[in-house]
Amino acid sequence: MIYRVSFPLENTYVNVREGTTVLDAEIAADLRPDAPCGGLGICGKCRVEIIAEDGTRKSVLACETKVTRDLTVYVDSDEDHRILTEGSGTVSELSPAVRSVPLTVEKATLDSPSSGWERLKKAVFKACGTELKPDPLMADGLEKTLDLLRYTPQAVLYHDELLALRECGRMLSAAVDIGTTTIVLYLLDQETGEVLATESMLNPQTEFGADVISRADYAVKHTPEALARAVRGAVNELLRKALDTAGAAKDDLFSVVIVGNTCMHHLFLGIDPRSLVLSPYVPSISEPLVLRASDYGLETHKNAKLFLLPCIAGFVGADTSAVMVSCSADQLDALTLMIDIGTNGELVLSDGSRFAACSTAAGPAFEGAKITFGMRGAEGAVDHADIKNGALTYSVIGSGKPRGICGSGLLDLTAALLRAGILDETGRFQDPDELPEESLPLAGRLQDIDGLRSFVIAEENETASGKRIYLSQKDIREVQLAKGAMAAGISLMLEHLGRKVTDIEKVLIAGAFGNYMSPKSACAIGLLPGVLLPRIEAVGNAAGTGAIMCAQSEPCFTRAREMASRTEFIELASNPAFQDRFVEELMFPEES
Amino acid sequence: MIYRVSFPLENTYVNVREGTTVLDAEIAADLRPDAPCGGLGICGKCRVEIIAEDGTRKSVLACETKVTRDLTVYVDSDEDHRILTEGSGTVSELSPAVRSVPLTVEKATLDSPSSGWERLKKAVFKACGTELKPDPLMADGLEKTLDLLRYTPQAVLYHDELLALRECGRMLSAAVDIGTTTIVLYLLDQETGEVLATESMLNPQTEFGADVISRADYAVKHTPEALARAVRGAVNELLRKALDTAGAAKDDLFSVVIVGNTCMHHLFLGIDPRSLVLSPYVPSISEPLVLRASDYGLETHKNAKLFLLPCIAGFVGADTSAVMVSCSADQLDALTLMIDIGTNGELVLSDGSRFAACSTAAGPAFEGAKITFGMRGAEGAVDHADIKNGALTYSVIGSGKPRGICGSGLLDLTAALLRAGILDETGRFQDPDELPEESLPLAGRLQDIDGLRSFVIAEENETASGKRIYLSQKDIREVQLAKGAMAAGISLMLEHLGRKVTDIEKVLIAGAFGNYMSPKSACAIGLLPGVLLPRIEAVGNAAGTGAIMCAQSEPCFTRAREMASRTEFIELASNPAFQDRFVEELMFPEES
Repeated sequence: MIYRVSFPLENTYVNVREGTTVLDAEIAADLRPDAPCGGLGICGKCRVEIIAEDGTRKSVLACETKVTRDLTVYVDSDEDHRILTEGSGTVSELSPAVRSVPLTVEKATLDSPSSGWERLKKAVFKACGTELKPDPLMADGLEKTLDLLRYTPQAVLYHDELLALRECGRMLSAAVDIGTTTIVLYLLDQETGEVLATESMLNPQTEFGADVISRADYAVKHTPEALARAVRGAVNELLRKALDTAGAAKDDLFSVVIVGNTCMHHLFLGIDPRSLVLSPYVPSISEPLVLRASDYGLETHKNAKLFLLPCIAGFVGADTSAVMVSCSADQLDALTLMIDIGTNGELVLSDGSRFAACSTAAGPAFEGAKITFGMRGAEGAVDHADIKNGALTYSVIGSGKPRGICGSGLLDLTAALLRAGILDETGRFQDPDELPEESLPLAGRLQDIDGLRSFVIAEENETASGKRIYLSQKDIREVQLAKGAMAAGISLMLEHLGRKVTDIEKVLIAGAFGNYMSPKSACAIGLLPGVLLPRIEAVGNAAGTGAIMCAQSEPCFTRAREMASRTEFIELASNPAFQDRFVEELMFPEES
Repeated sequence: MIYRVSFPLENTYVNVREGTTVLDAEIAADLRPDAPCGGLGICGKCRVEIIAEDGTRKSVLACETKVTRDLTVYVDSDEDHRILTEGSGTVSELSPAVRSVPLTVEKATLDSPSSGWERLKKAVFKACGTELKPDPLMADGLEKTLDLLRYTPQAVLYHDELLALRECGRMLSAAVDIGTTTIVLYLLDQETGEVLATESMLNPQTEFGADVISRADYAVKHTPEALARAVRGAVNELLRKALDTAGAAKDDLFSVVIVGNTCMHHLFLGIDPRSLVLSPYVPSISEPLVLRASDYGLETHKNAKLFLLPCIAGFVGADTSAVMVSCSADQLDALTLMIDIGTNGELVLSDGSRFAACSTAAGPAFEGAKITFGMRGAEGAVDHADIKNGALTYSVIGSGKPRGICGSGLLDLTAALLRAGILDETGRFQDPDELPEESLPLAGRLQDIDGLRSFVIAEENETASGKRIYLSQKDIREVQLAKGAMAAGISLMLEHLGRKVTDIEKVLIAGAFGNYMSPKSACAIGLLPGVLLPRIEAVGNAAGTGAIMCAQSEPCFTRAREMASRTEFIELASNPAFQDRFVEELMFPEES
């Protein structure tokens, strides 16, 4: 049987076979539902309301509800995410890889009957000293083209490759940061270096799982095709918007630079990510790539080039290379720790000559996936919090009632609970009667919920959903695991380079979470060593900035290759010292 | 209205719209009719028999007869052409551009988690010192492939490009000579150099016109697509046959080398040939090309390379480059004249250091297009003839009744008529009463037919068609034009290099016509200077041989590039001395 599933809020419907889950119906209707667990029924993030047979609304998990009749579904819309698009880092000189060169081509005569290509080649050589590579596709109809352009065309060149012959026109490029959660695209004017438009959206692959592991699993089970199609489609959507904003045409877009973690990189390319998720977790290919954008379905000039920055390891990707470019890691003169906390947490430690890198699974806790009321940094998220004089205060993105807790809120809450003595240094919630004097007014918030000691942030009447929001003992354990891994990673990298923590002169924190989190809270819970607090600096979307820099300057792309190939990757899982250090770092620091 | 056109001899039929010509119906039925004039109704070569409304058979021109009812058509089948596939020339050493290298690839471990591509690259570098170029398509699923091949694959490489990873297997290549009239394909074993199979067929583009000009006109009018499709399809047909003969699979075929005149070269590539047929007659592209065979629809291994030899000018193509390779023109130590008479006549004069080349329109006369009873060297063609003691003798290919006259027969007949005093040195047929004594018995053969003095070769009862076969005054004029152009070309090339005719120590004649023609007759009519008679040598299908040599040896391909770029092309049309020399050379030589 075929049933109709209607989505009144989205003004759409879809026909599906009996037994299809509501989640799959949402996917089929292109609603891009948020299903961080990949439809396993464990994250509860895909909750929707359906009209029950008695006409009342009923809340169900979309991934667990099968369609057995015509159905009306109200999806809890979750738009307007806070996506970080700004970052620091600039190029010293504009020198993009693709350039436009004015030519003067000779006409053929009976006395000098050289081929169209030979005369073109001569003109290119004269204009810029490049020996053009023969290309029969570009040679087709060449004489007619030259004639139309009065033998004085602009040649668009990538090294010795001819991409186009045309009248003068704009030269545009795009830099794209494909995050696991969000995709940001910058449209650039190649001649001025100006960012003409910035567009972003959630990565539509979310419907196949929130994290790289569930997406890789999906790709291994079903081929990477659907995931590749989803992300390429999203890049095209952003490209169209950006071109529209800039009043520009896709035929003026000759280069696209892409960064992303290794799984995003492989999935964009349509490469089976199997080897990434099976020990020893290696990429299929990590070299920097120069490809043809149209081969990957991108809506650019048909001969536009596509640049992918190098990956470093299975869990240290092209986004980390881009962060290194953005921080000019090869020109540092002091020991610097670079941290990019996105859905995963990648760490690079460098003094400008040696580079150590590792990856930790810190992200999921801070991006909301494993936290009961965790959510992305979107409207309704508790993003900052404090406990003072026995009172909890918090701020909510968008200033309405809270809907959940995002990463920076989680950090603040954990730090505040520690400071208030509600959590002890082992991460255990105190019994209400063990609380220090000044925290006694909060004792009522400590409740056992579903068998777990929990701290209530907002009661039913204070929330957007009418359900109370709390942090459970399990949530705190997730924070400990994340911070333990991060701290152990930092410690092992220092050891690898033979340095100690006080040698670190600068901590650059990239990524959205890094940007919004409170450094003080990060140090308070031991995510970062407390001694580094005054040296912490947020650098915004450094991966995006690195991509922009590579689009503006080919030498930056070359430096990315250089840095990536020299980076010493530290595999934490195989390191016997890691478990030891990790367990040690699970404890919260004693209050300093 | 739609009518059915049936072809009983071919056991096929086709449904066409009212008003379609019978020629177009034949094309639609894939019968590849022979229409040298391109359907202009002037060559008479497309004659077929139809069943008239009264039930009798009626002979009509297919290009001029429109379908206005259901029709039964008997096509004068013209199979079993004599196609020259043998040539001389060998390589000193097998060193094909694409090679197979055995590898030992390391496995990844947690301690050394390099990407699959990195480990592959390392293995290739170790095996042959090549720095492999990154290729995301080949990287997809790499670990699985390596595992299946137990980490000891054979890598098939073209320089730094990886074409395949596989178990050991055959390494095959193909050399293809795309002539205007015929296509010859050789399937080669790369490891032994052996020719495993030779296949040939008529160029199916014939249905769009016999000569390059009519085909180029068709392409300009209708886009080159149909012509490109036809020739690529033919190459695939030959490939399939050859692979079948050799008991080999297309997945073992990793390189294809193609030669052909500039128009065939452009049409194979799908390049608009407009600039070739408009003054100043220049190619769009003449450089040697290394492409991907599958991009041109060839049925090879999907990553096989496609090599096209360089062209020299609009009417001196890659086939001439191949002739130069086959004759080792860059290693000559004596002044040598190389002549390739196919559908066009290309001439190269070289002493091993300088190369002069030109093109003459000598071919059409010798390939039958412009001669009343001209035909290709196929069954039924008069291929040799003589007049002795007042009697005409001739031989016919296949030994049946004659159907027409091919190039070598035309040459012999013209020479014999001159010798017998039936033609004078201006090319005029004598009146019957002016004939010398010994030729009087032939006077009856001199007749006025359709207003033209003609010499009858075979009477109605002696021919296959029941129609008499003759040479008309117009046919003789065509021979004069062809030989005048050729002789003038030779003369101008000698002048260009500052040499005289007696300096020529060797005349190498390539191509089918060159192989079957009588050198004596060629000199007797002045196609070649008489003094060179003892120095004439037939070298068979030298273009095909050159293609084979380039498939067997990359240095040969490189030498082709070198020779082509150094060749001084002499444009006859623009040369003021040409008309003068041409008119001078129109006369037949006085009998020596």
